[in-house]
Amino acid sequence: MSPGKVYLVGAGPGAPDLLTLRAARLLESADVVLHDALVHRDTLALARKARRVDVGKRCGKVSTEQRFIHRALVEAARSHRVVVRLKGGDPMLFGRAQEEIAALRAAGIECEVVPGVTAALAAAATLQASLTRRAVSRNVAFLTPRAGKGEANADWLPTALCADCVVMYMAAGASQTIAAELIAAGKPAATPIALVESASLEERRIGGTLADLARAPLAGFDGPVVLAIGTPFGEALVDGTLTPIYLSEAL
Amino acid sequence: MSPGKVYLVGAGPGAPDLLTLRAARLLESADVVLHDALVHRDTLALARKARRVDVGKRCGKVSTEQRFIHRALVEAARSHRVVVRLKGGDPMLFGRAQEEIAALRAAGIECEVVPGVTAALAAAATLQASLTRRAVSRNVAFLTPRAGKGEANADWLPTALCADCVVMYMAAGASQTIAAELIAAGKPAATPIALVESASLEERRIGGTLADLARAPLAGFDGPVVLAIGTPFGEALVDGTLTPIYLSEAL
Repeated sequence: MSPGKVYLVGAGPGAPDLLTLRAARLLESADVVLHDALVHRDTLALARKARRVDVGKRCGKVSTEQRFIHRALVEAARSHRVVVRLKGGDPMLFGRAQEEIAALRAAGIECEVVPGVTAALAAAATLQASLTRRAVSRNVAFLTPRAGKGEANADWLPTALCADCVVMYMAAGASQTIAAELIAAGKPAATPIALVESASLEERRIGGTLADLARAPLAGFDGPVVLAIGTPFGEALVDGTLTPIYLSEAL
Repeated sequence: MSPGKVYLVGAGPGAPDLLTLRAARLLESADVVLHDALVHRDTLALARKARRVDVGKRCGKVSTEQRFIHRALVEAARSHRVVVRLKGGDPMLFGRAQEEIAALRAAGIECEVVPGVTAALAAAATLQASLTRRAVSRNVAFLTPRAGKGEANADWLPTALCADCVVMYMAAGASQTIAAELIAAGKPAATPIALVESASLEERRIGGTLADLARAPLAGFDGPVVLAIGTPFGEALVDGTLTPIYLSEAL
């Protein structure tokens, strides 16, 4: 039997109906689904006939090693026709997709990537704050303060200073440090910020300024959090879309 | 009659099945759809019972003025229940969504944003090049070199230099100038680039280096183009996903 095909599929930001039509169809026809920890159960339920394997990594908890995921993908493709690797958000942003693609290529297995809605865009939607905006924000950077093996920790700072608007992934735990470093590097302390937890699901939205964020560590987050920084998020605080930091239970 | 609701909906990068399930359901129930020029006809066909209005803007062609769009949205919501404003890609990136949201708020009309798959992510999927990658590309910036009214033209340069990886929207016409300016500002001439036209549809994919791009103007593009710049795109040229610039008909 010739090997099957692996689809690296974006599951979107969380809400099951923010999945793409293509992803839904692939899940319906999948023989095996290897999925991240945070994929919604209603999304997984679309994969009616598939064997489902949770290979999720979650901060601070027991996780599946990347090389195990590679081996599981290759083995699944050798004995099944349609293998879906389902990743939170979009596969090509902070998802280690390149390592999985390389492992599949090395094993001679065909692979295809299906893009998805990334958390930053779901957060912008819920905040009704466009990431770009004439004369206010001409560009946006997506980054993470989380350093991988062999990477320096402060790499994120220059890009965060340059871009008009920034959305940080996996930044909740370090939010106080991030704010302090940005202010120390010259970013105005009054720059608006917004934190959105579990964008598109049972959201928590907190807003304020970099100065507010630098004042105390935030806690109590359970779902994934994006931290958005820049002028576009100032209005969301004024119009009541955001809970001010000082009123938030997270303090 | 109380006014209806306006949904600012992302139509995704082009392929009709890269629409979200939520967007598809909203189109099916829409009474009126005001859409961009580049939305696929199969996507529009989902809006079976809706009156469809093309309010598209296309570079160099006759376009609908923004204030007309605002008036049309408000009028549609005053006489219909479900109004969909369908925008290419994601509404909150380079879509002038904030102006439309402000106009709706001023008129007391409720509005909701439905995120979509943006062209940069569709291009990354088709190139099988992850925009972020451990120790290679820790962040990505989305920007446009196109200046709006009252904006300086070279605003994009600092962010394009800072970010590890850059995806430019609406950059095809200026690609030679962009490459020359980046090289002059110190970006290595050997930095890999990829141009993807009509990502997720009848794509044209061209690759090379900034030096290749600076050599001559590119022409012959008809669909929307994203220009991706950075190390992650080097492999796509090697593995044959991209046509080298010197072999491209576009020269």
